[in-house]
Amino acid sequence: MPVPASVQWKDGRLPVDRSFSVALTGKVDERLRNYVFRVERRLEGRTVFEFSREPATDSSKASLLIETSSTGNAIPRLGDDESYTLEISDAQAKLTAPTTVGAMRGLETLLQLLAGDKAGFYFPAVSISDSPRFPWRGLMIDSARHFQPVEVIKRNLDAMAAVKLNVLHWHLTEDQGFRVETKKLPELYQMGSDGDYYTQDQIREIIAYAADRGIRVMPEFDMPGHATSWVVSHPEIASGPGPYKIERQPGIFDPTLDPTNEKTYKLLEVFFREMSQLFPDAYMHIGGDENEGKQWTANPKIRAFMKEKGFKANHELQTYFNTRILKFLQKDGKIMMGWDEIFQPSLPKDVVIHSWRGQKALADAARQGYSGVLSNGYYIDLMYPASQHYVVDPIAADTTLTAEEQKRVLGGEATMWSEWVSPETIDSRIWPRTAAIAERLWSPREVNQVDDMYRRLSIISGQLEELGLTHKRNQDVLLRRLAQNGNISDLKLLVSLIEPVKEYRRYQQRPQSMLSPLTGLVDAAQADAAGARQFNQLVAGMLADRNSPKNFDAVRSLLDQWRRSAKSLGTLMESSPGLFEAKQFANDLDDLGAIGLEALSFIESKSKPPSGWHDEKVAALKAIAKPKAALELQVVASIKSMVDAAGNN
Amino acid sequence: MPVPASVQWKDGRLPVDRSFSVALTGKVDERLRNYVFRVERRLEGRTVFEFSREPATDSSKASLLIETSSTGNAIPRLGDDESYTLEISDAQAKLTAPTTVGAMRGLETLLQLLAGDKAGFYFPAVSISDSPRFPWRGLMIDSARHFQPVEVIKRNLDAMAAVKLNVLHWHLTEDQGFRVETKKLPELYQMGSDGDYYTQDQIREIIAYAADRGIRVMPEFDMPGHATSWVVSHPEIASGPGPYKIERQPGIFDPTLDPTNEKTYKLLEVFFREMSQLFPDAYMHIGGDENEGKQWTANPKIRAFMKEKGFKANHELQTYFNTRILKFLQKDGKIMMGWDEIFQPSLPKDVVIHSWRGQKALADAARQGYSGVLSNGYYIDLMYPASQHYVVDPIAADTTLTAEEQKRVLGGEATMWSEWVSPETIDSRIWPRTAAIAERLWSPREVNQVDDMYRRLSIISGQLEELGLTHKRNQDVLLRRLAQNGNISDLKLLVSLIEPVKEYRRYQQRPQSMLSPLTGLVDAAQADAAGARQFNQLVAGMLADRNSPKNFDAVRSLLDQWRRSAKSLGTLMESSPGLFEAKQFANDLDDLGAIGLEALSFIESKSKPPSGWHDEKVAALKAIAKPKAALELQVVASIKSMVDAAGNN
Repeated sequence: MPVPASVQWKDGRLPVDRSFSVALTGKVDERLRNYVFRVERRLEGRTVFEFSREPATDSSKASLLIETSSTGNAIPRLGDDESYTLEISDAQAKLTAPTTVGAMRGLETLLQLLAGDKAGFYFPAVSISDSPRFPWRGLMIDSARHFQPVEVIKRNLDAMAAVKLNVLHWHLTEDQGFRVETKKLPELYQMGSDGDYYTQDQIREIIAYAADRGIRVMPEFDMPGHATSWVVSHPEIASGPGPYKIERQPGIFDPTLDPTNEKTYKLLEVFFREMSQLFPDAYMHIGGDENEGKQWTANPKIRAFMKEKGFKANHELQTYFNTRILKFLQKDGKIMMGWDEIFQPSLPKDVVIHSWRGQKALADAARQGYSGVLSNGYYIDLMYPASQHYVVDPIAADTTLTAEEQKRVLGGEATMWSEWVSPETIDSRIWPRTAAIAERLWSPREVNQVDDMYRRLSIISGQLEELGLTHKRNQDVLLRRLAQNGNISDLKLLVSLIEPVKEYRRYQQRPQSMLSPLTGLVDAAQADAAGARQFNQLVAGMLADRNSPKNFDAVRSLLDQWRRSAKSLGTLMESSPGLFEAKQFANDLDDLGAIGLEALSFIESKSKPPSGWHDEKVAALKAIAKPKAALELQVVASIKSMVDAAGNN
Repeated sequence: MPVPASVQWKDGRLPVDRSFSVALTGKVDERLRNYVFRVERRLEGRTVFEFSREPATDSSKASLLIETSSTGNAIPRLGDDESYTLEISDAQAKLTAPTTVGAMRGLETLLQLLAGDKAGFYFPAVSISDSPRFPWRGLMIDSARHFQPVEVIKRNLDAMAAVKLNVLHWHLTEDQGFRVETKKLPELYQMGSDGDYYTQDQIREIIAYAADRGIRVMPEFDMPGHATSWVVSHPEIASGPGPYKIERQPGIFDPTLDPTNEKTYKLLEVFFREMSQLFPDAYMHIGGDENEGKQWTANPKIRAFMKEKGFKANHELQTYFNTRILKFLQKDGKIMMGWDEIFQPSLPKDVVIHSWRGQKALADAARQGYSGVLSNGYYIDLMYPASQHYVVDPIAADTTLTAEEQKRVLGGEATMWSEWVSPETIDSRIWPRTAAIAERLWSPREVNQVDDMYRRLSIISGQLEELGLTHKRNQDVLLRRLAQNGNISDLKLLVSLIEPVKEYRRYQQRPQSMLSPLTGLVDAAQADAAGARQFNQLVAGMLADRNSPKNFDAVRSLLDQWRRSAKSLGTLMESSPGLFEAKQFANDLDDLGAIGLEALSFIESKSKPPSGWHDEKVAALKAIAKPKAALELQVVASIKSMVDAAGNN
């Protein structure tokens, strides 16, 4: 995962034992040597074998032979060749790539191919030829709303490399925090970050770490809106009167840089010059989203400026602002990128549009000659299941774009907005779902079977743990804390059936600030409730074939388990104050189990329920379906389908 | 945990809700403010409440009032006053301490008192007056055999503070690695560390981090033995001919510094001068252990030197060496510490003896006026259960030492030798057992009930997770990797019944090098097999009261569970090559269950087993008791006691 462009399975297998060895030929750089070193350690970890650290003397006898014809760019660039071929036979695995980065991608494929059975560990014989469908495959991490320490970024870079993503889009400034050290304007981070920011040394360390994994690092400095943390230290460049404080709430806020003030540009010129030198990537993201212009409309000086320039709407003023910023970036040799809002036809054609609006906006831009990257549909903070992101394609299947225009759709980015993630929980919001998005962006369009995706996602999810990712292991930590270190087995059952509410409803239903603890049940629950998916499949199978006692037994066994758990769960939740907000779920689980069992017996016995039964149960389910503690049970629709089936007997 | 010196429970409770507030009075430093900040965040994490970050305006109304009469030393020193009193009533918790460090200790006590029930979170009313029994309560971490990154050290410092330990003894050089940057002699770490070492910036960061938690950092540079990594770059100061390579095996090795060579002292003088400036602690540990002197005996030049000086034995030459080192340390204002071997009566009285030999060696030294620290009995790398360490007292109960002499027994240190720990597993070797040792060193001698210790240890173990400790969460990670991301529930049952073999038998039974992966089942298993302890208690209860059907049912239910799990466990282990080495355990579990059930039915029915049955089962158990994969089932003795009981019917 991602599925390669071309795979041909063959007969045979290459055993992996303690004699496993690697040989490198062609143009070999230090990055590749280090990558291979890490891959060998991961293989050792999985197999519990110690391999020799002496280089293989005879490359024809090495278990893995890697041949790279050039090293490629030491700092990755858009459009780098990431292709590779991998030929595994009984005798050897041979990985061939035109660049170091291509070899990295192939090594991750190889690691995913490791299998084990009664005869031992092995790589299956296969012939793979692979290259990405899109050249821009990113993950955006918002380090501004909730600061994420260096080790969080590093482990996520490791995970990105494991699923062949190649851009870290790093959202570094927001209303809620200014997270980057500047030597020229130190007051920005000193007053705007609560002390939580990246030093320039740390940023260089991250960029090098990413480059060693074939990943670009593109910073985003969001402006002119989302700018409160800027004007804490520089109220004079705001469009309204200060003073300002770091914002603690989520949402869209008024503080906006003043595009009519030359001081704004003076400061930004200095800032962008410094950042352009710090970040080697050719692209610089200036945000540009969600500027509602309230401060502009309220400010007579700004209104006068607009009148003077003949601007009729605020977006024209924003274009004026963007054009001025663009000049700084061009002088510093950077290409500008921004969200949909920045798009207007006077921009140079190399500007990149980052679309939260969707495929259509992207296609429109492509027709006009602009490149774009899709994020609409990849907002992983909205807590939709992987299946939903997986089916979003940057280019619609029925696209009318020409081949040339399609090339301007560079790819996509998963966006981890960080209103509700802490270092303890962020991995569980990014992974494993982002692997499904990574596959969409790398693999052929035709690779789109949801069930097969979930099957593979579950394996990859486990493999990511060897890189230090905490998306699986930390769930129990949160549950144990909530249960005051009591037994969590019933709580785990519940959490496997619930998901956080989608979109932005979490805040509406359970308001918190940026300073609130992210240790509630909603933080422990994940976007793909595995137990619910399993149950829903069993119910669908049972309803499709009502003559199989096995199908009925499988559903009944789970419903019985719910009812058993519900009792002890109720006791736990009533004595654990951290779980009070969710304690209704214990009753819900009991009720769902009872309703499900009743429905099941009607369906199985093909008998008619008493009059009124159906409507009564449907009403009960409606109440159960309501979110509690910003969480929803994901099995209510299945139970409803059983009640309906019973009612239709 | 540790239990305070004096606790008086009272009636009443102080509720903890979102209005929780803290006020500080007296002499308040930044360290205390930061500690309180972190304590509030931990309380928020547990309660899922957000507290106000505005300081309480009226200290008499604050939920927690902290009064410190002085800040004490900013960098902790031996003998710092760590006492505190804590008075909790319905209205307020009041923490009084003579120093910042005392307040830190009291804050950890307060955190441990947090409870929750149907009425919500609260602190129970109590009056506590507390101070440590011993002033030196340490954890030694060996960062040399397996390097441990900065974050591992930091999270362990957090855990140490949580259980009131106050010395990090940092073992930094060994045959297998030289882990500290020196500016004067960079070749030492450059050639002796594989690139895995601490920069001086990182060391300063760790020292500051520790000081912020009231913890001293004492480095150890082990010499003249355990010195291979020194002589990789400086073969000229070895006692035998080089060249040398970093040692990859565990054990005791020949390379020893040459005490007859003035070059040795020149280099060490420079080295200790630099380290004395880097590490602010008054104590400097020079190791001195396990020098077998083979290179000395083999070297005619060294033998001639000894003859000239009139030394009859190698230990006299080592004393000569120590005396020369001592002069450097004294010039740098440091006090020397070393393992038992350094002890001889010509040493100045402020030298501290670190005893791996035991209480008696320590008592002998104390009688002669020397201070000492006990580690014998606290070797956590030997994988003994917490109960075994818990009963080891630095001063024997029947001691004949005078009060004055007893004061020279400064305390003790748990020692985490790192032959078989990786950053992924080290926490699970240190915690939670070290909390039991911490209690031994802090609490009154009379606090020594093992069952109650285990009850509290299990709660503390969970609480340590909030500090990022991975001792619990990483076990599943190891098991999932071994199970190739399959279902691990049966494997978890097995691992709750087995422990790694004790002492140094792991290497004898399952040899590995320092470069081997530490990802086997032996690395997932822990020193206190919780499932085994539970089962053994149930069996003891059943045998003690054979008229209670409930007792029989409890044992039977577990035995049935073993047999059920054994089948699917066998399937898993046979198809998971990483588990091949341990697959016999699936059969063992099945056999144990079968034997146990048979014995149970004889005991319950008070009937006599057929002739030969007892001896046959005892023989079977003997085979099952044999270690496999360096692991031992911890329930065989209980099953044997059942077989014996049945046999005696």
